[in-house]
Amino acid sequence: MATTTKRADFEAIFPALAKDILAHAKRYNLPANALEWFENSLNVNVPGGKLNRGLSVPDTGLALLQKPLTDEQFEHLSILGWMTELLQAFFLVSDDIMDGSITRRGQPCWYRQEKVGLIAINDAFMLESGIYMILKQRFRSHPAYIDLVELFHETTWQTELGQLCDLITAPEDNVNLDNFSMEKYMFIVTYKTAYYSFYLPVALALIYLELATPETLKQAEDILIPLGQYFQIQDDYLDNFGDPFVIGKVGTDIQDNKCSWLVNQAIQRCTPEQRKILDDSYGRKDQAEEIKVKAVFNELGLEALYKEYEEKVVGEIREKIAAVDESKGLKKEVFESFLAKIYKRTK
Amino acid sequence: MATTTKRADFEAIFPALAKDILAHAKRYNLPANALEWFENSLNVNVPGGKLNRGLSVPDTGLALLQKPLTDEQFEHLSILGWMTELLQAFFLVSDDIMDGSITRRGQPCWYRQEKVGLIAINDAFMLESGIYMILKQRFRSHPAYIDLVELFHETTWQTELGQLCDLITAPEDNVNLDNFSMEKYMFIVTYKTAYYSFYLPVALALIYLELATPETLKQAEDILIPLGQYFQIQDDYLDNFGDPFVIGKVGTDIQDNKCSWLVNQAIQRCTPEQRKILDDSYGRKDQAEEIKVKAVFNELGLEALYKEYEEKVVGEIREKIAAVDESKGLKKEVFESFLAKIYKRTK
Repeated sequence: MATTTKRADFEAIFPALAKDILAHAKRYNLPANALEWFENSLNVNVPGGKLNRGLSVPDTGLALLQKPLTDEQFEHLSILGWMTELLQAFFLVSDDIMDGSITRRGQPCWYRQEKVGLIAINDAFMLESGIYMILKQRFRSHPAYIDLVELFHETTWQTELGQLCDLITAPEDNVNLDNFSMEKYMFIVTYKTAYYSFYLPVALALIYLELATPETLKQAEDILIPLGQYFQIQDDYLDNFGDPFVIGKVGTDIQDNKCSWLVNQAIQRCTPEQRKILDDSYGRKDQAEEIKVKAVFNELGLEALYKEYEEKVVGEIREKIAAVDESKGLKKEVFESFLAKIYKRTK
Repeated sequence: MATTTKRADFEAIFPALAKDILAHAKRYNLPANALEWFENSLNVNVPGGKLNRGLSVPDTGLALLQKPLTDEQFEHLSILGWMTELLQAFFLVSDDIMDGSITRRGQPCWYRQEKVGLIAINDAFMLESGIYMILKQRFRSHPAYIDLVELFHETTWQTELGQLCDLITAPEDNVNLDNFSMEKYMFIVTYKTAYYSFYLPVALALIYLELATPETLKQAEDILIPLGQYFQIQDDYLDNFGDPFVIGKVGTDIQDNKCSWLVNQAIQRCTPEQRKILDDSYGRKDQAEEIKVKAVFNELGLEALYKEYEEKVVGEIREKIAAVDESKGLKKEVFESFLAKIYKRTK
C-alpha cells in the first residue's frame, strides 16, 4: 500500500521553481526593483498555505501506481502540484481584492501590504503566467504537454465562471435573497471550487502518468465533482454549526451575505414569517441580526438536514468508488483517500 | 501588390467568436444573469477600439503572400487578429483599474460602469480565457497550434513585466524622479507595448502561414521592437508637442507623473537649477506647475532632440528592412506598411 507525500519533501521543490520563474524575468533584463518585487510576491503568495491541492498530485500518483514513485516521478508530480498552488495563489490574490478581504493565512492580504494596493492585480496575472512558463520549461517534451496546458486553461475558465456567478449573486452591498437559488449555489460550488480543488490534481496525475483516457477522466470527474460539492457544503455547515475553537475562526457567512448551502435550504423550507426574518436580518453586519438568522436555521432543523445529506451523498460516492474498474488505470484508493480526509471532518 | 484589410470585413468576424465563447459558458449551464453579464463585458470591452493590432494580422498575411487571401486564410488570420484584441481588452480593463482611469474610448471605463466595480478584475480574466478557448476550438488541428498558444503566453508575460516595472517606477502618489532612468523607460516601452502591439500580430501571421522559423521570427523581432519603441516615444512626444486639436485630447503625462521619454531626456540634460524645477513641479496636478516643466522641456530643446532621434531610428529601421532576405519567407512590405503608418504621424 502506497504511503503519502511528506510535506517537507514537497515544499523542498518550490525554491527551484521560483528561481526558474525569476531567471526568466532576469533574461529580459527586468530592472532590479521589479525583480525584487516579483520575488517577494512569489514567496508571500504561493507557499505557506495548507497545500492540500498541491500534495494531492503526488499522492494521486502514488495511489495510481501502487508503488513508490521514482525520484523523477516525484519531482514532476510535485511540480504539477505546485502549479495547482500557483493557480490557487492567482485566484486568492485577486479574490481577496474583489471581496475586500482583510487577512489571508494570518497576514494582511497581499493587496493590503505596504505599497502594494491594486498593483496586486498585475501580480496575480504574473502568478498565473508562471504556470505556463514552468509547464513549457519542464514538460514540453512530455507526450501530453498540450493536454496539461489545456487542462489548466479549462480549469481556470471554469473557476472564473464560478467566481462571476458568486460575485453577481451575492454582492455584499445589496442583500436580496431573491437572487439566491439552490441551482446557482450548486453552480458556484462546482465551478468555483470543485474543479480546481478536486478534479485538477487527479487529472494532472492521470495525464502525467499517461493513464488519462476520455473514460478514466470522465470517471474521475463523476466522483470528484460530487466530492468537491460535498466538501464545500460541509464548509458552509461548519461555518455555522462547527466549533470555532476547533476550526480556528468564527463563521461570518451570515453577516457576509454568502450564498451558502444553509441559507438556500432555509429559503426552500421557511414559513412566510421565517422568510421575513431572513430578509430583514441576513447579510447585516450586526450580531443581533445574525442571532435571529441562526435561530431560524435551528427551527428548520438544518443541522439534522445536513447530516442526512452527508450520509446520502457519501453513500452515493462510495457506490461510485466501488464501481471503479481498476483494470482501466484508475485506482479506488485515489478517491478513498480524498473521502477519508473529508468525511465527518470538524475543521 | 496586396491591398489592406477592410475594417468592416474584419469586424464582421467578431460576432461569431463572441457567440462561441458564450456557447462554451452555456454548455456549463452558467446561470442566465451571469451569461448576460459576460456578453455585455465582451461587447463593451473587445470591439470599438482602433483595431490596429487586430487588422495588422490579416494585413501581414496579405503582405507575406503578395496575393489575395483565400476566404479561409482571411477568416483564420482575422480570428487571430481578434485574439490580439481580446488580449488588449484583458490588459486595458485591468490597467484602467490599476491606473484609476476615468474614461476609455469615450465611455466610462468598464470598472466604473454601473454595478461593475472590482468584478471587472474577474471580467478581465475571462477575456483572457476567451483567447485559449477560441485557439483550441479553431486551431487545434493546425500543425503549429502549440506555437500559437505559447506565443500568447509569452507575450502576456512580457506585457505583465512591462506593466509591473511601470507601476512601481512611476506611482502617481509618490513623485520621485530618482526612480526614473532611460534604462527603465526602454524596458517599459519594449515590454509593455512593443511586443504585444508590433511583434505579436506579425509573429501570429508567420506562424499561421507556416513561414515561422527561428530566423524569420528573429528578423521580425529585430525590426518590430525598435519600431514599437519608436511608436511609443512618438506617443510621448505628441503628448507634449502635438496639436491637441489633431490628437483629440490634451496631454496629461506631466501631471500624471509618467515615466516618459521627454522627462528622461530632460533628467539626462538639465542643469541643477532645471532639475530643481522638475523635482518640484513634475507629477503635480496643477497647471501652473505643468507650465514650468514645459518651459524646461523647451529650454532643453527636446522637440529638436526628438526629431533628430526620429530621423536616426527611422534610418536604422529602413536599413534593417532593406536587408531582409525575402527568399526566406519574410517580405519587406510587412514592415514598410507599419513604418508608413507611423513615420511623422501627427495623431
